[in-house]
This record gives sequence, C-alpha cells and structure tokens, in this order.
Amino acid sequence: MDTREKLIQIFKMFPGIGERQAGRFVYFFMSRNKTFINNFVNLLLKLNEETKQCSECFRFFSEEGKSKNTLCDICRSSNTDRSTILVVERDSDLESIKNSRTYNGKYFVFGSLVPIVESNTNKTTRIEELKKLVASKMKNGEIKEIILAFSLNPQGNHTDFYIRNELKNLVKSDEIKISSLGRGLSTGTELEYSDNDTIRSALLNRQ
Amino acid sequence: MDTREKLIQIFKMFPGIGERQAGRFVYFFMSRNKTFINNFVNLLLKLNEETKQCSECFRFFSEEGKSKNTLCDICRSSNTDRSTILVVERDSDLESIKNSRTYNGKYFVFGSLVPIVESNTNKTTRIEELKKLVASKMKNGEIKEIILAFSLNPQGNHTDFYIRNELKNLVKSDEIKISSLGRGLSTGTELEYSDNDTIRSALLNRQ
Amino acid sequence: MDTREKLIQIFKMFPGIGERQAGRFVYFFMSRNKTFINNFVNLLLKLNEETKQCSECFRFFSEEGKSKNTLCDICRSSNTDRSTILVVERDSDLESIKNSRTYNGKYFVFGSLVPIVESNTNKTTRIEELKKLVASKMKNGEIKEIILAFSLNPQGNHTDFYIRNELKNLVKSDEIKISSLGRGLSTGTELEYSDNDTIRSALLNRQ
Amino acid sequence: MDTREKLIQIFKMFPGIGERQAGRFVYFFMSRNKTFINNFVNLLLKLNEETKQCSECFRFFSEEGKSKNTLCDICRSSNTDRSTILVVERDSDLESIKNSRTYNGKYFVFGSLVPIVESNTNKTTRIEELKKLVASKMKNGEIKEIILAFSLNPQGNHTDFYIRNELKNLVKSDEIKISSLGRGLSTGTELEYSDNDTIRSALLNRQ
Repeated sequence: MDTREKLIQIFKMFPGIGERQAGRFVYFFMSRNKTFINNFVNLLLKLNEETKQCSECFRFFSEEGKSKNTLCDICRSSNTDRSTILVVERDSDLESIKNSRTYNGKYFVFGSLVPIVESNTNKTTRIEELKKLVASKMKNGEIKEIILAFSLNPQGNHTDFYIRNELKNLVKSDEIKISSLGRGLSTGTELEYSDNDTIRSALLNRQ
Repeated sequence: MDTREKLIQIFKMFPGIGERQAGRFVYFFMSRNKTFINNFVNLLLKLNEETKQCSECFRFFSEEGKSKNTLCDICRSSNTDRSTILVVERDSDLESIKNSRTYNGKYFVFGSLVPIVESNTNKTTRIEELKKLVASKMKNGEIKEIILAFSLNPQGNHTDFYIRNELKNLVKSDEIKISSLGRGLSTGTELEYSDNDTIRSALLNRQ
Repeated sequence: MDTREKLIQIFKMFPGIGERQAGRFVYFFMSRNKTFINNFVNLLLKLNEETKQCSECFRFFSEEGKSKNTLCDICRSSNTDRSTILVVERDSDLESIKNSRTYNGKYFVFGSLVPIVESNTNKTTRIEELKKLVASKMKNGEIKEIILAFSLNPQGNHTDFYIRNELKNLVKSDEIKISSLGRGLSTGTELEYSDNDTIRSALLNRQ
Repeated sequence: MDTREKLIQIFKMFPGIGERQAGRFVYFFMSRNKTFINNFVNLLLKLNEETKQCSECFRFFSEEGKSKNTLCDICRSSNTDRSTILVVERDSDLESIKNSRTYNGKYFVFGSLVPIVESNTNKTTRIEELKKLVASKMKNGEIKEIILAFSLNPQGNHTDFYIRNELKNLVKSDEIKISSLGRGLSTGTELEYSDNDTIRSALLNRQ
C-alpha cells in the first residue's frame, strides 16, 4: 500500500466517512501547502497532549497547559450537582445533553451499548466501573438518582434493562432512584405519522 | 379545459399529490376498462352515502346501510370512557391514536391548527363547538380531563396555547384538568442528534 | 370488506400509492360533499367514454364527443413524419418525449419491458403487433428508421436487445435503420459521481 | 480559540464536512492514542513530501522517494496519447475519467468552473496556462483534439462556452477539433422523469 492508500484506510475510520469521501480527503491534502499541513499536524499533536480521560466519568477532556488533573472539569467543578449520575453511551451524547443546558449533575460514559445477544458484555462496556462508582458514592451518601440516557432503539432499551438489572443488588434501598429519559413526542413529531409506542408514551406522560 | 385537465385539477387536491403524479393518475384511468371505472365510481358514491359527520366529535364516520345515527360509533359506544376528551387537528390524527389502542375516551376533531398570526380564528376551527361540548359535559359532571394532542411544531404549540386560553374561563374549577401529550424521546430518537427542547423534555419527564 | 377497505384496495393500484396514502385518500373522500363526488365521478365516466386505444400505436387517447376515429391524433395528423417509429415502454414515456417537442414522428407503445429471464414474452409485450406494423409500413416504403427509446437500466437494455433481435429477419435491407437513444451526460450529471458506463458513452459520443 | 475549536475550523474545510461532523472528528481524535496520532501525522507529512503538481497538466501527483520529476506519470508515460487533451475542472473529475479506463490521452486540470457573472476569471482558472499548453503543442503538431469535460449544469456549460471562445483565435485551422462530452441518457435514467434537454440530446445522438 502506498501513502495515499494508507491514508484512505485511516480516513475511513473517521465517523461517517466512506471510501469515496476518504479518497476526496486525500486529494484535499495533496492540494494543500506545507504550512497548512504543519498547522494541522501541530494541532492534532497538541490535542493529543491536552487530552485525558477522566478517572471517574471516563469522559475525554482537554486542558491547555500541562495540568495534572485526573478528573475532568465537570467532575471537579463545585457547581456540579453530585447527587445524580447521568449514564450515556458515548462522549458525543454527553456533549448534546451538556449543550442543552438543562442538566447540572455528574455524567458517566458507559462506552458502548449492550448488544442484545452477547455473552461477554463486561469487556466492551464499563459496567464494573459504573458499579464501583455507584458503590463509592453510596458510601458517601452523596448519590440520589441514576439517570439512564440511551437512544430510543432496541439496543438502547436493552442497555437500559441490562444496567437496571446489574445495579439492582447494589441499589436495594429506596434512597436511590434509577430513572430513564422520558418518552413522548419529540420536536417536529407529526401525530399522524407517529408509531404506536410513541403515542402510548405521549399519552401516558401527558401533563 | 378538457376532461383530462379537469381531472388533473381534482387529483392535485388529493393529499400529497402534485402535478406530475396527478398526470399519471389520468393515464391510469385512461387505461382501465369500463368495469373497473364503474366499480370505483360505485364505491365512491356508496362511501359518500354511508359517511356522516358526528354531531358531537365532528369525526367523519361511515356505516353500511341507512342508519339514522347522528353520533359516531365511538361517541355512541358504552365502552367509551366519557370522562376524557382528546382534541386532535384532523381525522387522520384521531385514526393514529385509535390504532395505538391506548386511549379509550372521547375525541374531538378541531378542524385545523390555529395560525400563529391570524385575526379570525373562529372561522377555520371548531373552538365554539368545543366550548359548547365542554360546557354541556361539565353540566352533566361527566368530564374530568381534556387532552390536547397536536403535532409538536410551532403551529401545534400555538393551538395548544390558544385552546387553553379559550377554555380557561369555562374550566375554572380544579375538577377538570387540561393536559397535553407528553414530550421526550420518540421511537428511533438518537440522543446525539436530538435538539435541546427534546433533551430538556426527556430529562424533565424522566421516570 | 367494507366500503372503505374496498376503496383502499383500489387506491393502492394508483401509480406510486401505498397503504398509508390510500387510507388518507379515503378520508379525503369522506370529508367531501356530494357535489364534489358527483363532479369527480362524472369526469371519470366522461374520460372513460372519450378514451380509446389507437389501433396502430396502442397509445391511449381521448377525444371529446363521439368520434369514430380508431387512430389517435398523432397517427392521423398530416404533420406527423411517417418515416420513423419511436418505440417506448408506456404512455407516460411517450408523453415525456412528446412534451420535449423534439420528435415529430410516429410512436409505438410496447406495453412493458422484457424481463431478463422470461420464457413467454409475447404475452406481456406487443412484439407481434410491432412486427406487423413494421412489415406493413415497409410494404408502403414509408418507414426509414425505428428508434428504440427505453430507460437506461438492465431491463431497458434487454428489451432493446430483444426487439433488435426480433426485427432482424424482417429488416434485412439497409434501407431501414434501427437506432437507440444516445447515451452520455444527462442534465445535472456531476462528472465526479458518474459511473464508468456513462463516462465511456459521454467520451464516445463527444462532439 | 482553544485547540478543539481550531481543529473544528480545519475539519470544516474538508470536502463535504459541516460543523457537526467536524465536532465528531475532534472527539474521534480525542479518543485515539498517541500511536494512532503519530502514524496519521507521519502519513500526512509523507504525502505532502511525495506530492507535486504537474507542470504541464496541473494535476497533483504523488511519488514515493525523492524523484525530481516535474511531470506527472500520465504526462511522462510513453503510453499516453499526446494528440488529445481532456480539460476537467478538478483532480477528482480526472480520477473518475481515469478509472473508467476509456481515455488514454493527456489531461488538463482547469482549476475551477467559470462563474456565469464574473469580471476577473483569469485569476481563478488556468485559462492562460491552457492557452500556453495548446499553443506549444500546436507548434509541435502533436495535438488534434481538445475535449471539454465539465459537469452538465449551468456553470459547466458556461465554462465550456468560455473556453471555446478563448481558444477560437488560437485554434483557427481545421486541424484541431474542440469537442465536448456527449449528452443523452445516463445510467439509471428513467425516460418518464427525464427533462426536455436530456430527451432532446438523447434523440439527436441516437445511434
């Protein structure tokens, strides 16, 4: 494989990029000058240096300068409400919720959804890390609610079910609530074209 | 205008049909034989004869034979829960909710959404008919809840707001609740691509 | 099946209409008044009366009044160039070409494409009628070119091939040319996204 | 702007990448380890070193090792037919045509299309370079045909017209032909949905 083919293989790993667009990226770089490439390369190396994974919520975070923080800015901030943990699949879900400015608690990045048929889930998800975090927060009496926030599709539902099941021995008391995101009409939903599950949820959750 | 052009004008009134498809419908009918046309025509005339508009919920309903009912099957049925009225924009919304088999109460077809800028709303909607129905049901002490079920877009929201405002003098007591369909994640929603409003609702309505 | 269900079955036969839209058409008719229905029904019956299939090109054509023409307006017109016959799959293709105002000859509606794997083609297409027409026009010495105008997909190509093969014994002399529509870039084609066949044709047919 | 924001600005320059996907690329890189980043960075720097712009056709080409070629592999190859020059807008168009394996001549990358309303075209296109190349090839008597190969849209048509006009004083003799890619049905074209221009071209170019 020559340099171009090797680069196409890497570009195809970018989220949402297929063979054809990967090829166009190669052309894009072929037509850039040395200064552009150097600038881009330096930013990538800088990002890598500035990026760490939070030891508590497993979120990737970046900080300029050589900080020694092992906790991300959300986990460190005194403004963060430590009584709730919102569990998401991945960093980009976390970012969407953060951008909505409606949640002020802690997060936990679960790493992936739980496949519906799967023997060895522990290896791809952070179920053990989540249990450990919940156990330690319970000891402190800090935690009151765990919110499961997965996409509304079969795998997301299965992951919700799986985590509830795994936490049920740990969270026996009534002091801690496990909740899931509410269901109903979402922005732009046309009633006429809604599926039965959505209508059912929208009716049950009417207010 | 010749016969074909006149028919194209009518086909263009069918829901979701544009000029081009209207033209294809004309070809479709040109290539059918007399028996097909007669069968179709007879069914249309039969439908028209069998169809009435319910005097209470304004839903169109059809009944074989020459019945003298002025109320539709839902409004007549003893199985219908008369304590709730669910207000929808149009018949097809009603049908979607009916098909979801999660609602057992009465309906009311409002006729159209309320345009956000509009001086003369009364003429296009059934606000007066709705008020009259609610007033008469209140007298009987039958009604406990009015559910507003409009699509989740600016006009739907405006209509929700408009009806609440119009009913507020009528429904002063705490005995009758006015509710709206719940908001949150709907089937297939990907968290990463959700808008802020949907995330906010999904968090607020978590359970 | 009640009237509504019977009508849904018919609407589903309309070109491009599925179950859901068929249901919306029924609602559309339920909410129309008697005058509208009668007007529509009368136009359909009138169209049926006015419509005939041309005995030469098999095109459906409609004429107001009770004409006794067995030939359509194109086949009858003295402005029609009788030296070329353009063979299309169906009436709507003919209409597209007619609307482009670039062809002034005769047409022939073949009825359907020839399936790639098929034993009994004669029954679904008008190959015998086409042969007969060509033979009779050759006798008169009227015809100079037969243009095959099928969509550019595997079945269209196969039909082109099939007709050429069927006509080859009939049209031995060099006096009659069999041609197919030209290939190349079509309006809106982006070179970068073109397939190899299109680029090859566009290069071969450069001018 | 912090490192992430700077990178988003760069990713948005990638062909076909918008704000949201640029953001996802940043997350992608945040979650990669040092080895991955280094490998990618080294390939980019290597590509930059290996890439040159051909002094004759202005195509970007890459060659492993430190070659001193100023001409690309196509312009250098003895297999290339020097009697035709095919003018394309950009490298990716050239690549499409090359991949179709139906053209064996020289190319010329014009750089951009000519905007329909534009005073100062010379600055964004390589019209002067094209004229110079054609003039020099004419002197040698090498060149027989210039093929203009632009996308079939208004700007592409305008560029075709512009180049023909600019070359007309240079290419007076009948010895050199200026041609454009053929027009007609392209793969997948449905006759019924074709525009008039495409039908006209397909009829004119029938064969």
